[in-house]
Amino acid sequence: MANSPSGDSVTERLIRVLETFTPARTVQTAADIGRRAGLPASSAHRIVGELVDAGMLERDDDRRIRIGMRLWELATRSSHALRLRQAAMPSMERVQSRVREHTQLAILEQDEALFLERLSSPESGSNVTRIAGRLPLHASSSGLVLLAYADRALQERVLSGPLMSVTSETITEPSLLRRKLAEVRTIGHAVAPGYIEAVSTGVAVPVHDETGDVAAALSVVLRRDAPTEPALRELFAAAREIERALGGRR
Amino acid sequence: MANSPSGDSVTERLIRVLETFTPARTVQTAADIGRRAGLPASSAHRIVGELVDAGMLERDDDRRIRIGMRLWELATRSSHALRLRQAAMPSMERVQSRVREHTQLAILEQDEALFLERLSSPESGSNVTRIAGRLPLHASSSGLVLLAYADRALQERVLSGPLMSVTSETITEPSLLRRKLAEVRTIGHAVAPGYIEAVSTGVAVPVHDETGDVAAALSVVLRRDAPTEPALRELFAAAREIERALGGRR
Repeated sequence: MANSPSGDSVTERLIRVLETFTPARTVQTAADIGRRAGLPASSAHRIVGELVDAGMLERDDDRRIRIGMRLWELATRSSHALRLRQAAMPSMERVQSRVREHTQLAILEQDEALFLERLSSPESGSNVTRIAGRLPLHASSSGLVLLAYADRALQERVLSGPLMSVTSETITEPSLLRRKLAEVRTIGHAVAPGYIEAVSTGVAVPVHDETGDVAAALSVVLRRDAPTEPALRELFAAAREIERALGGRR
Repeated sequence: MANSPSGDSVTERLIRVLETFTPARTVQTAADIGRRAGLPASSAHRIVGELVDAGMLERDDDRRIRIGMRLWELATRSSHALRLRQAAMPSMERVQSRVREHTQLAILEQDEALFLERLSSPESGSNVTRIAGRLPLHASSSGLVLLAYADRALQERVLSGPLMSVTSETITEPSLLRRKLAEVRTIGHAVAPGYIEAVSTGVAVPVHDETGDVAAALSVVLRRDAPTEPALRELFAAAREIERALGGRR
């Protein structure tokens, strides 16, 4: 595809434009997009104009730009994210109706936990997870499950990289994280008390695909001092059910 | 942006590539994508390669291509689709827990009803709706609500266009559709018995945004002969609640 004078492809520029939209920044001017994407103003206006014409971006009454419904539709309708979510949804709803806090589904994506679904109740406790949002592998219960069953290369990359402290209780020592991952594999689930927020505890179990690989982590976020066992029983039962829905083992 | 010899922009080619993926066609070879997108094989391979490198598309073990998690993430995390869905979800879950058939949220998109969410139970009856799927405005209860409150130009466009017969009961006469739309505005909801499937009845109500415009249709799909009144009461209560969650009128 045609390259710009700076050598980046149109696809790369397009991605940079889309990446300027975040959960906290849902509308922007074309000029802001250009600045944040590192594009010359003229290029930014042209690419934004083309994406608006195509329905990938939308312009509101104030001429501010947001992600288009057409892009959401095309990115969702055939996606593996939707397939996994649909297979998991009935089981997630049962967990949610019984535990009544937060029930979540995450996958491994670019060395982070990417959340495909989150169910909550009006009376649920605190939870920072967002749908299509991410959390660090070493700090979240979902991430710990995904990391514990990931290939060795990824584990070593995370263990040797900076381990960001999200709270004072996040594991940031490689040797402690290594021990935690071994524990996750031994007990078959991860508990992350206060790693993401001091007031809550994440509990996650693996969900396997038809080849036996871990395809996702199913988790709940509980109030910090709530007992984990009742939720864990629900999670294990739900994970087996999701595996059956995915056409997997047993 | 750079144009190809045939004059279409790179953005247009990109859209055509993404449009070849559908709910029924989630994985394809690069050659199939090129053929379906009407692109020369060399262009198709180049654009697919760039999109794979960027994570917008993914290549599986058989070198077949599917929509990438990264594209889903970027298209979802800041989207209006997610905002509407999140505002509606608690109310939709209550409707679903009481009616126990199918509960759906749709918006108007390019002269069709685009479905943002669908909740179902294992014991629910038949329903063709898919998340990120579409139904014709004149044939679905959601579409009838969206059309009844749409601007006059759209109404006349649909009334003068071909009105596809989905079942033998779909309204395909413009004069009858005009009367149906007036009825929807009078009674404030739409009932579509057998219009999409002979065995089911759709019931939909409007959800207004903060300006008073209809932002979405909230609907249930019932078995054909089920009474509609209990579901309708739930739908009206839920719609008011979603409007409050959207920051709108009462």
